[in-house]
Amino acid sequence: MDKQRCVVLGGGGFIGTHLCDSLHRRGVTVRSFGRNQPLREIKGVEWVKGDFTDEVAVANAVGGCEVVYHLIHATTPATANLEKVEDVQRSVVGTIKLLDLCVSLGVEKIIFVSSGGTVYGVNQNIPLSEEEPTAPISVYGTNKVTIENYLRVFYHVHGLEYYIARVSNPYGSLQNGLKNQGLIPTAARNIINDDSINIFGDGSNVRDYLYIDDLTDFLVKLLDYSGQQRVFNAGGGQGKSILEVINAIELRLNKKARLRHLASRPFDVPSNVLSIDRAKNELDWFPRTSFDDGMDKTIEWLTQNL
Amino acid sequence: MDKQRCVVLGGGGFIGTHLCDSLHRRGVTVRSFGRNQPLREIKGVEWVKGDFTDEVAVANAVGGCEVVYHLIHATTPATANLEKVEDVQRSVVGTIKLLDLCVSLGVEKIIFVSSGGTVYGVNQNIPLSEEEPTAPISVYGTNKVTIENYLRVFYHVHGLEYYIARVSNPYGSLQNGLKNQGLIPTAARNIINDDSINIFGDGSNVRDYLYIDDLTDFLVKLLDYSGQQRVFNAGGGQGKSILEVINAIELRLNKKARLRHLASRPFDVPSNVLSIDRAKNELDWFPRTSFDDGMDKTIEWLTQNL
Repeated sequence: MDKQRCVVLGGGGFIGTHLCDSLHRRGVTVRSFGRNQPLREIKGVEWVKGDFTDEVAVANAVGGCEVVYHLIHATTPATANLEKVEDVQRSVVGTIKLLDLCVSLGVEKIIFVSSGGTVYGVNQNIPLSEEEPTAPISVYGTNKVTIENYLRVFYHVHGLEYYIARVSNPYGSLQNGLKNQGLIPTAARNIINDDSINIFGDGSNVRDYLYIDDLTDFLVKLLDYSGQQRVFNAGGGQGKSILEVINAIELRLNKKARLRHLASRPFDVPSNVLSIDRAKNELDWFPRTSFDDGMDKTIEWLTQNL
Repeated sequence: MDKQRCVVLGGGGFIGTHLCDSLHRRGVTVRSFGRNQPLREIKGVEWVKGDFTDEVAVANAVGGCEVVYHLIHATTPATANLEKVEDVQRSVVGTIKLLDLCVSLGVEKIIFVSSGGTVYGVNQNIPLSEEEPTAPISVYGTNKVTIENYLRVFYHVHGLEYYIARVSNPYGSLQNGLKNQGLIPTAARNIINDDSINIFGDGSNVRDYLYIDDLTDFLVKLLDYSGQQRVFNAGGGQGKSILEVINAIELRLNKKARLRHLASRPFDVPSNVLSIDRAKNELDWFPRTSFDDGMDKTIEWLTQNL
């Protein structure tokens, strides 16, 4: 069999760079596509610079690949509510055009990184299984669900194979927290710089954290999966409150954080922990890195690279 | 208390015209907004002509109203798959702009007509309750779900009250079948004109039909509802196959149909019947018109008006 050829859309970002690295080391031919310079260059991975809204650039990136990893979203969970129409135009319409392209270029499979933290909305059935209804309360979550739905439509109408990874909060090296995304690097930077940390609400909100190496392991497993399940949660298997996470950083930095409590944001769900039983059963995957080990490595990287 | 003031967006169409009539007769002050001339003028209902993508026209239509009925969708279930991006631009982005307007103009409640026939996708748990996950396999259904999600977001972020009516296939007078929508008028017209009827698949697909007077009764009930349920199915309470429906028309026209069987369309679900228990319990609503009575009245109207 020929070597598999993949393109990673959004390959220059935090998840994308790690994913390209893992795929490349596994022997896959990898092309990486993104708007900004990649966080780290990977020898042997072809880098293609371009904007997701530029159809010709996307066509050039996708052409010749059997598998497309789609990691691009135009906004972050924190900013999407302020850019509603723009997020629809860029993330949703951009993806519809991408899917049309995938059909016409003969792509075999698309793997989409969705958001386990936002698509379920306010739901007490923790840990959340993939069978729970989607009920987002944020623009970001809504547009992720819309893209998931379009993937199902394209599969039914055009036979385009798809798998959806509903990812919790990934953390680890290369996540620098500069894009208003990622509690761990943002909080660590502020503690190091003696800046206060903005906490929306009382800090009891529970979130699910996944170490980056476990996430890339998960995404690589989807490359060979061809079973009937289409949607998989990818989480760390346990919940941590915001205050617990900050405490874990303080311990490792040996320095106290200064907290600035702000009003809760109406689009934040109170609690989110993902069930990962399906991925365990179908993909033989589970997160190998404990929260303590992952935090050790992450804070070490952050202290050396911030 | 002052008289309630409502605007019906899409008030000139099949459902909208009947709804304006019912609201007006109930003593509500009604404004009707739409792109084309209304199917029937209703004395005492203010008619405002405009396009849903014209923000100024929509603002003028909504201004001064406490309640907005939103019945506009840019495409039909049959055409949406051919106009994917246009449907997002007009139906989804148009609705986001409408919701922003509703917030800034102080609208109290929005009632959205969604699609009970498409949002659930392929699901064997017939009759389908509102608790079933949404899993559309068509562009039309996807964009309806997206709008439902945006309503939830606006409620959480801005407190805009909303209710969603997942309507099955309405039928009755004024539905002329000219817009490629509505099996009953389309089939009746073709039988009368000696044209063959296109059937996608073998005709065993089961659908849920709701007589128009029962639907407007349902939509009017949502005007005064202020309970915790946000989503309601509105269906006839039973399923009919396409062949059963055509047979019912043949009986009343006393003339055989000529059927032309075409390949199934990949975006058609095999079976769809809605559970209406929630509407019975919460709204004290149920369809009062039997399928036989509804068909008698509908075919009588069609024979006189086609």
